[in-house]
Amino acid sequence: MEEKNMAEVLEKAEVLIEALPYIQRFNRKIIVVKYGGSAMIDEELKKHVIQDVTLLKLVGFKPIIVHGGGKEISKWVEKSGMEPVFINGLRKTDEATMEIAEMVLNRVGKSLVTLVEELGVKAISISGKDGGLLKVQKKYSQGKDIGYVGEITEVDPKILYDLLEKDFLPIVCPIGLDEQFDTYNINADDAACAIAKAVQAEKLAFLTDIEGVYKDPQDKNSLISELTVNEAKELLASGNIGGGMLPKLNSCIDAIMNGVSRVHILDGRIAHCLLLEIFTNKGIGTAILGEKETKFYHE
Amino acid sequence: MEEKNMAEVLEKAEVLIEALPYIQRFNRKIIVVKYGGSAMIDEELKKHVIQDVTLLKLVGFKPIIVHGGGKEISKWVEKSGMEPVFINGLRKTDEATMEIAEMVLNRVGKSLVTLVEELGVKAISISGKDGGLLKVQKKYSQGKDIGYVGEITEVDPKILYDLLEKDFLPIVCPIGLDEQFDTYNINADDAACAIAKAVQAEKLAFLTDIEGVYKDPQDKNSLISELTVNEAKELLASGNIGGGMLPKLNSCIDAIMNGVSRVHILDGRIAHCLLLEIFTNKGIGTAILGEKETKFYHE
Amino acid sequence: MEEKNMAEVLEKAEVLIEALPYIQRFNRKIIVVKYGGSAMIDEELKKHVIQDVTLLKLVGFKPIIVHGGGKEISKWVEKSGMEPVFINGLRKTDEATMEIAEMVLNRVGKSLVTLVEELGVKAISISGKDGGLLKVQKKYSQGKDIGYVGEITEVDPKILYDLLEKDFLPIVCPIGLDEQFDTYNINADDAACAIAKAVQAEKLAFLTDIEGVYKDPQDKNSLISELTVNEAKELLASGNIGGGMLPKLNSCIDAIMNGVSRVHILDGRIAHCLLLEIFTNKGIGTAILGEKETKFYHE
Amino acid sequence: MEEKNMAEVLEKAEVLIEALPYIQRFNRKIIVVKYGGSAMIDEELKKHVIQDVTLLKLVGFKPIIVHGGGKEISKWVEKSGMEPVFINGLRKTDEATMEIAEMVLNRVGKSLVTLVEELGVKAISISGKDGGLLKVQKKYSQGKDIGYVGEITEVDPKILYDLLEKDFLPIVCPIGLDEQFDTYNINADDAACAIAKAVQAEKLAFLTDIEGVYKDPQDKNSLISELTVNEAKELLASGNIGGGMLPKLNSCIDAIMNGVSRVHILDGRIAHCLLLEIFTNKGIGTAILGEKETKFYHE
Amino acid sequence: MEEKNMAEVLEKAEVLIEALPYIQRFNRKIIVVKYGGSAMIDEELKKHVIQDVTLLKLVGFKPIIVHGGGKEISKWVEKSGMEPVFINGLRKTDEATMEIAEMVLNRVGKSLVTLVEELGVKAISISGKDGGLLKVQKKYSQGKDIGYVGEITEVDPKILYDLLEKDFLPIVCPIGLDEQFDTYNINADDAACAIAKAVQAEKLAFLTDIEGVYKDPQDKNSLISELTVNEAKELLASGNIGGGMLPKLNSCIDAIMNGVSRVHILDGRIAHCLLLEIFTNKGIGTAILGEKETKFYHE
Amino acid sequence: MEEKNMAEVLEKAEVLIEALPYIQRFNRKIIVVKYGGSAMIDEELKKHVIQDVTLLKLVGFKPIIVHGGGKEISKWVEKSGMEPVFINGLRKTDEATMEIAEMVLNRVGKSLVTLVEELGVKAISISGKDGGLLKVQKKYSQGKDIGYVGEITEVDPKILYDLLEKDFLPIVCPIGLDEQFDTYNINADDAACAIAKAVQAEKLAFLTDIEGVYKDPQDKNSLISELTVNEAKELLASGNIGGGMLPKLNSCIDAIMNGVSRVHILDGRIAHCLLLEIFTNKGIGTAILGEKETKFYHE
Repeated sequence: MEEKNMAEVLEKAEVLIEALPYIQRFNRKIIVVKYGGSAMIDEELKKHVIQDVTLLKLVGFKPIIVHGGGKEISKWVEKSGMEPVFINGLRKTDEATMEIAEMVLNRVGKSLVTLVEELGVKAISISGKDGGLLKVQKKYSQGKDIGYVGEITEVDPKILYDLLEKDFLPIVCPIGLDEQFDTYNINADDAACAIAKAVQAEKLAFLTDIEGVYKDPQDKNSLISELTVNEAKELLASGNIGGGMLPKLNSCIDAIMNGVSRVHILDGRIAHCLLLEIFTNKGIGTAILGEKETKFYHE
Repeated sequence: MEEKNMAEVLEKAEVLIEALPYIQRFNRKIIVVKYGGSAMIDEELKKHVIQDVTLLKLVGFKPIIVHGGGKEISKWVEKSGMEPVFINGLRKTDEATMEIAEMVLNRVGKSLVTLVEELGVKAISISGKDGGLLKVQKKYSQGKDIGYVGEITEVDPKILYDLLEKDFLPIVCPIGLDEQFDTYNINADDAACAIAKAVQAEKLAFLTDIEGVYKDPQDKNSLISELTVNEAKELLASGNIGGGMLPKLNSCIDAIMNGVSRVHILDGRIAHCLLLEIFTNKGIGTAILGEKETKFYHE
Repeated sequence: MEEKNMAEVLEKAEVLIEALPYIQRFNRKIIVVKYGGSAMIDEELKKHVIQDVTLLKLVGFKPIIVHGGGKEISKWVEKSGMEPVFINGLRKTDEATMEIAEMVLNRVGKSLVTLVEELGVKAISISGKDGGLLKVQKKYSQGKDIGYVGEITEVDPKILYDLLEKDFLPIVCPIGLDEQFDTYNINADDAACAIAKAVQAEKLAFLTDIEGVYKDPQDKNSLISELTVNEAKELLASGNIGGGMLPKLNSCIDAIMNGVSRVHILDGRIAHCLLLEIFTNKGIGTAILGEKETKFYHE
Repeated sequence: MEEKNMAEVLEKAEVLIEALPYIQRFNRKIIVVKYGGSAMIDEELKKHVIQDVTLLKLVGFKPIIVHGGGKEISKWVEKSGMEPVFINGLRKTDEATMEIAEMVLNRVGKSLVTLVEELGVKAISISGKDGGLLKVQKKYSQGKDIGYVGEITEVDPKILYDLLEKDFLPIVCPIGLDEQFDTYNINADDAACAIAKAVQAEKLAFLTDIEGVYKDPQDKNSLISELTVNEAKELLASGNIGGGMLPKLNSCIDAIMNGVSRVHILDGRIAHCLLLEIFTNKGIGTAILGEKETKFYHE
Repeated sequence: MEEKNMAEVLEKAEVLIEALPYIQRFNRKIIVVKYGGSAMIDEELKKHVIQDVTLLKLVGFKPIIVHGGGKEISKWVEKSGMEPVFINGLRKTDEATMEIAEMVLNRVGKSLVTLVEELGVKAISISGKDGGLLKVQKKYSQGKDIGYVGEITEVDPKILYDLLEKDFLPIVCPIGLDEQFDTYNINADDAACAIAKAVQAEKLAFLTDIEGVYKDPQDKNSLISELTVNEAKELLASGNIGGGMLPKLNSCIDAIMNGVSRVHILDGRIAHCLLLEIFTNKGIGTAILGEKETKFYHE
Repeated sequence: MEEKNMAEVLEKAEVLIEALPYIQRFNRKIIVVKYGGSAMIDEELKKHVIQDVTLLKLVGFKPIIVHGGGKEISKWVEKSGMEPVFINGLRKTDEATMEIAEMVLNRVGKSLVTLVEELGVKAISISGKDGGLLKVQKKYSQGKDIGYVGEITEVDPKILYDLLEKDFLPIVCPIGLDEQFDTYNINADDAACAIAKAVQAEKLAFLTDIEGVYKDPQDKNSLISELTVNEAKELLASGNIGGGMLPKLNSCIDAIMNGVSRVHILDGRIAHCLLLEIFTNKGIGTAILGEKETKFYHE
C-alpha cells in the first residue's frame, strides 16, 4: 500500500477508536430521536439520519424514532379540497383532517421502515394506538376547541420494551386514543418527550432546523454547547428565549427532571448531526444535562 | 330466581359448555382470518367480527387478521382527483395510487386496532414492510404491466411469532417490498394464504360475501358444508366453479397442500359467522380440509 | 340454513360474546373452588361442576379445586366395622378413622382427575402432604381432644404455583402434617380459605347446599346478591346469621381481609352455578367483596 | 482429638470420597426404583430405603419411586368383608376390589411422601391417572377376564419431567386409565419398567426379596453379580430360571433393549442395599447391563 | 457376601446417611475455602483437599477456592537472583517481585484446575483481574511503602456468579488492580474474607497449620470447638490471642458481621479436614458463628 | 463551527457510516484473533490491537484472543539459569521449561485482561486446562521426543460459549492436558486454528510479522489481497511458498475446509490492522476464503 494511502487509512482507524468510549458508555441504553424538520424533507439528509440511527442500533444502542408528518399532512389536506387551518400554531383538526393526518403519518412511518430495512436492520412502525402506547385527552388552545388535538395523559411503554427485546427498531407516529377510543393527533415533540420519560431514556435528541440554543438570540456567536438543567431554567427566567425554542426548552427541562440523562437540540440540517454528537468530541447543537451529569463533550 | 329465568340462564351455560371441546381442540393454535367484504363495511358486522376475533384470542387461540382496504382506496383515489382503473379485475396501481393505497390500508389497520383495544386486548397493526414480513415481485396481468401490484415471493414470519409471543393480536395489511425496496400492493386473499402457510396455521378463514361453495351454482340448495381437498380438486375439474370463487378455491387447495389443516369460506354477512363456525356444530359456509382430517362439523 | 335455526344459532354467539368481558377481566387469575355438598354426590351435578372448572381452565383462568370426602368417609368407616362419631359437628378422628379418611379423600381426588382428563385437560390431585403444602396443629373442640383433626398453621403454596405454571389443574384434599409429621384431617372450607389467601386468589367460590345468605333467614325473599365485607360484618353483628352459615361467613370475611378479591357462596344444587356466576350478569347465590371492589353483577 | 477417634473419623471421610466417582458418573441421571416386598413392610428397612432415595436426590440424582401396595390391599379387602382372589398369581379385581386398591395405593404413596419430607426433601405422590401418565388396556390371564387388571399401552412422561424440573421427588402408584377412562390396577414391576423406558432412565432398580439371579438356583454360591443383556438372554434360554424371577428377568431385558443403561435386582432385605449398590464397589444383588456398558462394579 | 464383609459395607452406608442432613442443609450454598499452608505443600494432603472440595461441588454445594502461592513465590524470587524481603511480615513487593508472584500464583491456580478436572469436574482458575473481580489500593505497612501490596477496596462478584451458574468450580488467586490498573498482590486470607462477604457465603473455611483457637494458648487442652461472634470478641478483648491468630480471628469476626453464617478455622494438616468438618458431627478445629446460629456440631 | 472544522468532522461521520455494512454483516459472529509477533512486543502496537479487539466486542462481534508468549518465555528460561533449546523450530520443553512457559503465558494473558478492562470491557484469561478446553497428545518432531510439546486432539468449546454468553472477552493461552493430565505447551497458531474450527468462527485472523502472501516471494509487488481456498491450494502446489508461511497457509486451508468462513493473514506491524481489515474496503494483508464466499474487500 502506498504511504499516502496508508496515512489516510490509519486516520479512519483512529476515528473508529475515537468512538470506543462513547459506544462503551451508551451500550444497551435507550435513545429517543425526535425526527422532523428539514432532515425529513431533504432526501439526502433523510438518508443520513436513517444511516445514523441504524448505526446506533447496530453498535448496541437501543434507538426509538418518533416522527411527525411534516408538510405531507398539509399537502394531502389541500389535495382533498380542504384548507389547513392553524390556531395559535396548532393545526385545527376536524374529523376529516384527522383522518388524513393518520393516513399520512402512518405512511411516513412505513417509508422510514423501508429505509432502515434497506440497511439490513429490522424495523417496525407503530402509532400510539398500537398496544395502547399513548393515552390522551383533548387539548384546548387558550380555551378554544381545536378538534382532535390531544395531550398525553399516560404512556404504556410495554410495546416498546417488547419490540426492543425482539431486536426491532421501533418507529412511532404521534397519534393516540382518548378514553372514548377516539383518535387524536399529538405534537411530535411532546410525544418524544413523554416516551423518553416513560422508558427512562439515556438520551432524547431533537432534530431541529436551528443551530441550537443561543445565550443571546441576536448574537450568532453565543451558541451554547452544554448547559445544566439549572442553567437552562435560569436562561428561561432571563426572558431571552422566545419563539419555537421556548416550548422545546421547557420539554428538555421536563425530560431531565423526569429521569432522562441528557437532551440534545441538534441542527438537523447538518449531515450526520446525530452521529457526530454522540461519537465525537465536537458537539453539534446544544446539550441540556442533569445536575449530576458532568460536561464532557464540546471542550 | 324465577323458573323461567332459570331455564334461560341454564341454556346460556350449555352454550358455553358446548364450546368446550372446540376450545380444547384449538388451544394455542394459529388462525389466520382474511377480513374483507361486507363485514368490513357494515359497522354492526365489523363490531361482530372484532368481538369474535377478540374472543378467540382470549380463550387461547392465536388469531392473525389480514385485511384489505375495501372501497376506501377507490374513495380516496377519487377524492384526490384521479380515477380508479381496473385491468382484468386488478387495480392499476401507479405511484400516486400506491401512495394512497398505502395510506388507506394502514389507517384501516389502525382502526381495527382501536376496536380490539376497546375490548381490552392489546393489538398491533403492521404492513408486510415491517420486519421484512412480505417480499414481492411485480405481478403482470396477462403480460401487462399494471404498476405496483406484487405477488409474494417470500414470507419471513419472525415478526408474527414475536408479536404472538408477546401476546399481541397482529393485524396485517397486504403491502410488501420488492428487491429494490419499492412498495407494492398485494391481493389480500393471497397475503392471507401465504401467511397461513408460512406460520402453518391450523385454520385459514375467509370472510366473504357469498354463502359458500355450491355443487351447482344455479341451485341454491346445493351448498357444500365440508369437502376434502381431493373433492375440491374434483369440483374444480368439473368446470362448475366460476367467477370470483375460482381463485379462492385454488387458494384454499394451495393452503391445505402446504400445511394448513382447514380452510373456511364463511359468509361474512352473517353476524358472528366466525364464532359460530368454530364453536358450534352448525357450520356456516364451506370448509375445505386435508385428506387426513375427519369431517366433524355440520352433521 | 332455515331462519329459525339461524336465530337460535345467533343467540348462541351472543352468549359467548356476553362472556367476553368476564374472560378478559379474570384472565390468568387464580380461582379457588371449594367443592362439596350435593354437587359432589349427584352424578349429573358432579359432571357439570367439572365441565365448569375445565372450561374456566381452558379460557385462561387458573382454577384450583379443594374438595372434601362427603359421605364416603362415613360409609367406609361403617364398612370397616366402626361407627362414625361427631363431637360439636367435628368428626372424632382416631388413628383408624384417619387412615380411612386419607384413603377415601385421595381416591375422591383421583376420581375428579379422571373426570377432568376425560375432557382433555391435564389434572393432578394432591394432598396437603405433597410438597409440604399444609402444615397443621391439633385442633381442640371446646377443649376436647378429638384426635387427628388439624387446624392450618402454615401454607407453602410453591407446589401449587409449580403445577399451575406447568399447566395442570390442581385438585387438593384437605390433609396435612403437624410438626411431628403425623397426619391430620382438615375442614375443607378452612383449607380452601387458607389456600385462597396463600395464593392471593382473585376469587374463592364455595359450592354449598344453600341458596346464599339471607338478610332474614326466615324470609326466603331476602336473599342477598352482593354485600361488601363491611356489610357482611354488620350482618354478623346483627345476630341474624346462624347455623352453618356463621363459620362460612367468617371464612369469607377472613379471606377478603387477607387479599382475596371476591368470595362467592353458590348454590351447588343449581347446574353450572359456577359458570353462571362468572360469565353472566345473573348472579347465583351471594358474593362478598372488598370495600374497593365495585358491585357489578346482579343488578 | 484422640488418635483412635481420629482414625475412625478418617475412615468416614474415605467412605465419602469413595462415593465421588459414582456421584460424578450419575449426576442428574434418572433412577427408577421399584419399591416393594419386605423393604416395604419392615419399618426399619422402609426408613433405610427412604433415606437412600433421599440421599440420591440430594447428591444430584433424579430418583422416581414406583411402589406397590403390598399386603395392605388384601388386609383392607378382608376388612371390608370380601375375600382376596388370585388367578394365576394375579389378583382378581372386581369394581369393589379396585376401589379398595386405589384407596390403599394412594395412601401408601402419601405415607412415603411423609417419610421423605421428614428428611427435608419435597416429594409428591401421584398415580398413573395424574397428567395422563399411564394409559392401559384390560389384561387377560390366559384368556380369562380377571377384572380391572391393566397392561400399559402408553406412558406420557411429561408430568414426571415437570415434577423433576420443579425439584420434587415423584412417587408413583401403578394405577391407570383405559380409553373409556375406567380405572385399572397395574403390576408395579411392569409400571416401573414402562416408566424407566419412557424417561430413558440411567438405572432401574428392583427391591426384591431374593438375593439376586443365580446361575444355578440350587447352588446358593452361584449368585451372579453382573451379566450383560446377551448373557441374560442365554440364561433364560438355558431354562434354569424359574418362578417369579422369569418375568422379572424378562422385564430387565426389555428395559435394557429400550434404552435403560443398567437394571439392578437388589436384595431389599439388606439395609441400604440401594446406596451400597450405587456408591460402593461391593455390589448387592445382580446387575444386567447393555452390551456397550462396561462391567465396573463387583470386581 | 460374608458376614464380616456385610457389616463393613453397612457401616459405609451409615456414613453416607450420616451426611444426609448436612447435604440437605447446605444444598446450593456457597462455601469459600481459603487454601494454603501445609495442605498446599504436602502432595497427599493436597489431593485430599481437592477430593473434598470436588465432593462438595458434586453433592450440590457451590465451593470457591481462594489460594496463596506459599513457598513457591520465594523459591522463584531466589531462582531469579533476587532475595525475598519481608517487612512486618509482609513481602516487600517491587515490580520484579510482583511479576514473579503473578506468574507463580496463576500457575498454582492452573495446577489446582488440573487436579479438579482429573476427578471429572470442570474448574476454572482466575485472578482478581478477571472480570474486574478485585479492586485494590496500595497498603502501607506502618506507614512504609512496601511496593505492590494491595488492600481490597471493592469486590465485583459478577464473574463468580457467572461461573457458578455455568457449573464451574472457581479457583481464585489474590491479585488485583488499582485505579491506575497497576497489579497488586493481596493477602490470601483477606481476599477469601472479602469474597465470602461479597457473595454472602454460607461458610468460609480457612485451612491453616494450627489446630484451632485455644482459650489459653499455653494449654493444648483448651481448644475451642465453637464460639459465637460475641464470644470471639470477648476472647480478643482478653488479650490471650496473639501471633498469626489475631488477624485471622479479626477476619472471622468481620466476615460474620457482614453476612457470612459460619467461619471455620481448620487444621489443614489433618487429611479430609474439610469433609469431616462439614459432614460429621466431630468438628475439626474451631467454628465461629453468628449470634443467631445454633451450635450443633461438636457436641 | 468553522467550515474547515465542519468538513473534518463530516469526514469522521463518513468513516463511521462506512463501517455500517461490516458491522451489520458480522454482528454476533465469532472472530478468533491469533495475537503474536511484533504486535505483542511493541507497546504502542499492543495498545492498538487491544483497542481494535475491544471495539469489535463493543459493536457486537464476539472476539476470542489466542496468544503466545513471544520472547518472554526465553527471557525467563535464561533468567532461571537454563538455555532455550529449539529442535526443528520447536522449543524443547522439559519439565522445568514447561513450568516457566506456563507461568509466563498465564501472566501474559492477565496483562491482556488488564489492558482490555482499562477500556471498560470485562475480560477473562484462561488456559486450555480450564473447563477442559484443550486436550492434547505428545507431538514428536521428526520422530524425536522434544518434551512437553503437545498437539491438539480435542477441543471442548463449552467454556468459550459460556464466557461469551456471559459477555466476557475470552483470552486463551495455548496450554493443554493430555490423558494423564500432564501439562503441554501448544503452538499458538495451531491452538487458534483448532479453536476457530471448534466454535465455527466467522473469521480467524493471524497477526503476523509479514505483509501477507506473495504470488512470488521475490516480488514485493505480488502481494495477494484475496484468494479462494482452491487458489491457496494451487499456490501451495506451485512450490512458491516457503519458510514460516507454509504451515500457516496449511492452517488457513484447514480452517476454511472445516467451517471457518474467512481467514486473514494480517501485518501486525501496521497499527490497527485488524480494524482496517474488517471495517474498511482497503484490505491489509491476505484473506483466504471458502469457495462460496464472494470477494468483496480490496477492490
